[in-house]
Amino acid sequence: MILEVAILHIKPEEMSRFEAAFPKAEAIVSSIPGYISHELQRCIETKGRYHFLIRWESVEAHMVNFRQSPKLQDFRALVGPFFAQPPVAEHFERVTASHI
Amino acid sequence: MILEVAILHIKPEEMSRFEAAFPKAEAIVSSIPGYISHELQRCIETKGRYHFLIRWESVEAHMVNFRQSPKLQDFRALVGPFFAQPPVAEHFERVTASHI
Repeated sequence: MILEVAILHIKPEEMSRFEAAFPKAEAIVSSIPGYISHELQRCIETKGRYHFLIRWESVEAHMVNFRQSPKLQDFRALVGPFFAQPPVAEHFERVTASHI
Repeated sequence: MILEVAILHIKPEEMSRFEAAFPKAEAIVSSIPGYISHELQRCIETKGRYHFLIRWESVEAHMVNFRQSPKLQDFRALVGPFFAQPPVAEHFERVTASHI
């Protein structure tokens, strides 16, 4: 299992509309083979900053199964209009955890 | 519940020693009132980059119970020597999640 951290910068005046549109967008991600779970986190200190955390079975599940699928365009069509700048994604492997 | 995301930049040549020292450091964090759970994630793309994700009952649990406690110094004494630059921490509140 790996963790994708996608940092999203949403136009502050569009935050409500972005959050209202998110259920449809997360349903797309949840349908991808290799998807495990996700959460959307809103930064308390910086308005418009979000971390979209997605657990995948592998980096390939994200980079191939999702990003090379037509579903990426569906996802972008839903939330792309709210982005103030392009999202940045990184992948992480767990070193240690108390539980999850 | 809130999520603290601490971004750590570890000297690449010190990653093994940092990870070996981490169990003592995480035991300190786990002992703080208001602590819920944590995980340490190592970036796949950027050597030396880690996300230390900690769930707290509130921002105050982190900023007061931990950062104004003498235990912060104990924590820093254990892992501070491995830092290539000071860590950056932000707090997040959950918008939505599949489960956790």
